[in-house]
Amino acid sequence: MIYITRKEHFNAAHKLANPAWTDEQNLEVFGKCSNPNWHGHNYYLYVTVKGEIKPDTGYTVNLKDLSVLIRTHITDKLDHKNLNLDVDFMKGIMPSTEGLAIAIWKQLEKPVRELGGALHCIKLCETENNYVEYFGS
Amino acid sequence: MIYITRKEHFNAAHKLANPAWTDEQNLEVFGKCSNPNWHGHNYYLYVTVKGEIKPDTGYTVNLKDLSVLIRTHITDKLDHKNLNLDVDFMKGIMPSTEGLAIAIWKQLEKPVRELGGALHCIKLCETENNYVEYFGS
Amino acid sequence: MIYITRKEHFNAAHKLANPAWTDEQNLEVFGKCSNPNWHGHNYYLYVTVKGEIKPDTGYTVNLKDLSVLIRTHITDKLDHKNLNLDVDFMKGIMPSTEGLAIAIWKQLEKPVRELGGALHCIKLCETENNYVEYFGS
Amino acid sequence: MIYITRKEHFNAAHKLANPAWTDEQNLEVFGKCSNPNWHGHNYYLYVTVKGEIKPDTGYTVNLKDLSVLIRTHITDKLDHKNLNLDVDFMKGIMPSTEGLAIAIWKQLEKPVRELGGALHCIKLCETENNYVEYFGS
Amino acid sequence: MIYITRKEHFNAAHKLANPAWTDEQNLEVFGKCSNPNWHGHNYYLYVTVKGEIKPDTGYTVNLKDLSVLIRTHITDKLDHKNLNLDVDFMKGIMPSTEGLAIAIWKQLEKPVRELGGALHCIKLCETENNYVEYFGS
Amino acid sequence: MIYITRKEHFNAAHKLANPAWTDEQNLEVFGKCSNPNWHGHNYYLYVTVKGEIKPDTGYTVNLKDLSVLIRTHITDKLDHKNLNLDVDFMKGIMPSTEGLAIAIWKQLEKPVRELGGALHCIKLCETENNYVEYFGS
Repeated sequence: MIYITRKEHFNAAHKLANPAWTDEQNLEVFGKCSNPNWHGHNYYLYVTVKGEIKPDTGYTVNLKDLSVLIRTHITDKLDHKNLNLDVDFMKGIMPSTEGLAIAIWKQLEKPVRELGGALHCIKLCETENNYVEYFGS
Repeated sequence: MIYITRKEHFNAAHKLANPAWTDEQNLEVFGKCSNPNWHGHNYYLYVTVKGEIKPDTGYTVNLKDLSVLIRTHITDKLDHKNLNLDVDFMKGIMPSTEGLAIAIWKQLEKPVRELGGALHCIKLCETENNYVEYFGS
Repeated sequence: MIYITRKEHFNAAHKLANPAWTDEQNLEVFGKCSNPNWHGHNYYLYVTVKGEIKPDTGYTVNLKDLSVLIRTHITDKLDHKNLNLDVDFMKGIMPSTEGLAIAIWKQLEKPVRELGGALHCIKLCETENNYVEYFGS
Repeated sequence: MIYITRKEHFNAAHKLANPAWTDEQNLEVFGKCSNPNWHGHNYYLYVTVKGEIKPDTGYTVNLKDLSVLIRTHITDKLDHKNLNLDVDFMKGIMPSTEGLAIAIWKQLEKPVRELGGALHCIKLCETENNYVEYFGS
Repeated sequence: MIYITRKEHFNAAHKLANPAWTDEQNLEVFGKCSNPNWHGHNYYLYVTVKGEIKPDTGYTVNLKDLSVLIRTHITDKLDHKNLNLDVDFMKGIMPSTEGLAIAIWKQLEKPVRELGGALHCIKLCETENNYVEYFGS
Repeated sequence: MIYITRKEHFNAAHKLANPAWTDEQNLEVFGKCSNPNWHGHNYYLYVTVKGEIKPDTGYTVNLKDLSVLIRTHITDKLDHKNLNLDVDFMKGIMPSTEGLAIAIWKQLEKPVRELGGALHCIKLCETENNYVEYFGS
């Protein structure tokens, strides 16, 4: 069993605000992240897949296929978008780094399995000072 | 003469669109950067100041003072903001990396001189793959 | 269960020397790290907390709170200090990267629990070529 | 139990091609990586060792010893070499990142044990966008 | 006048050897870089263009156009290639970082001018510890 | 004319304090950097040399020679040392980043000329957020 990771990136706008709360409550909890006019980030996404090495290629999965898969299912939908408004699979989900990482896992789990591997970890970096990791449960 | 650089960062939303153009024209020229619902970046700002070394401190300028100055004049106004909507000194300016770098120069030139140095360069990184440098003319 | 990591940094002096040994023995084992007049590093500290997502915020723990907690308990006590001489929680402990990481764990375990998460990992980078990870046992 | 990691690097040429296949088949599966005239990378290797802290040194293993060990067994044999042609322990092995990481594990497992630790992970980065991790089984 | 930089990368094999010299002479001068079976690198290329800001776009040059231009003229010809054998514009040129940087300048100078800017600097990083800069004369 | 840069690093302790001042005055000006028990940094040093390409090697200067030269004259004297106490060429000089960069220039200017190049720039990074550049006058 070996673990292979592909890094991709996307740039997006978002804000953190609970729609059930007042602006003052949101400012108190989320601080600057609740700015009504949005802010944004350069996100770095690390997708880790585990599997056996195929004897004829030396590959676990072909990284070019994995990269196309991530772009199709994730980064084409997130890059240069508003995470609160523009993304089908984020409807009704708070676009915190945690919420986004789990949503990405749900989008990728099945396609990665069809590629011949098993999704092991979604690591999502929002800034160089914070990131989350999700292992599926 | 020695050159000293302080790096700061801020996260912001923006879009690139000429208000005199149609959405189609903006999409053709600016591509994904014209998304009406915004996108965003983690910006890295490098402020380079030149000057003589002060004999009693070994400093050109005190970096703590320079850092406070950059925060007061620039990053407190840009961090977690919308560059098109929220920033007084960006009114009427296209928030391209170029436009933002020149606007930052204009804000910092005088305060840096009052600190005892001369502003030499504003370097602004929008992503890890592109940046601009402005030397004041 | 999700894992969230906050990166902080501090700059400190230290030396590695067993007080029960002669200078020659210390030089033989610790090499340049035993220089009696000290040397120092820019340390990078990654604190990983695990927990459930809170439904009303989308947060595991609020990173601003976690950052304040790390500064109060750790980096305010280590930054611009001598690890052998100036730090209460390092008394009698060899300030190797290992020794420092375990001491940081002991300081943070309880406050992180009070914040609503569980401390998962302390990762401490002494240079860009070496780091240690400690998971609590 | 603590985990300590040493980073080393080497620069090497390689190509990916199954000798049982035609050039067209290799091009279809491996793309540009099958270029008959080779291509190359700056590889970054992270060797993680786990163990107990020795009370008289504060070390798990002495990083200088670990670094010498990695150079002797690995990087002296890989640096500025052709991974398909020049490396004894890669004979008959596809020099994919996966294949190389597992081969490095096999070379290091015993020497690391003799140093007083247990090899925990080989992480090998081929580019800044992809890496593999191997934990020994 | 403002300076805008685009970063691209490519992976390539090469060796350094003067064909007029014996293997011993080449080994003495070029060391491991003269390995007859090649070695390779992940190269990072920074192309800096200077120009005026266009008032209707806020751009000096459109970075998407610049990126396409660099790929067409440079990275499509260098990526996953052998710099000694596979590249038309490197025939008869020693593929040192210096030689490669100057050759890239010659390929890009005219196309960048046709894009509406002036080529200012080619910066080429062969490893994280060495790079060259060329300003055209 | 081409510019070639070699990056080296060293780890050192220092403090910033004017011996003619009281502890209170030093604390007011230098803040935490005046800690009497020292602090330290991982320094990164970039030495840029300019020159013509030699036709038989494709080199401006041989980077291996330049690296040996920097180690002999600079990093062997600074690495794992106290910049205030242990370094002959820093006697009587405030070990600010500025003071250290100029002192390094003075040590390297002549040896670099003897190597066949001209010293162009000393860039010295004290932390990832600040650095100085010195061009010799």
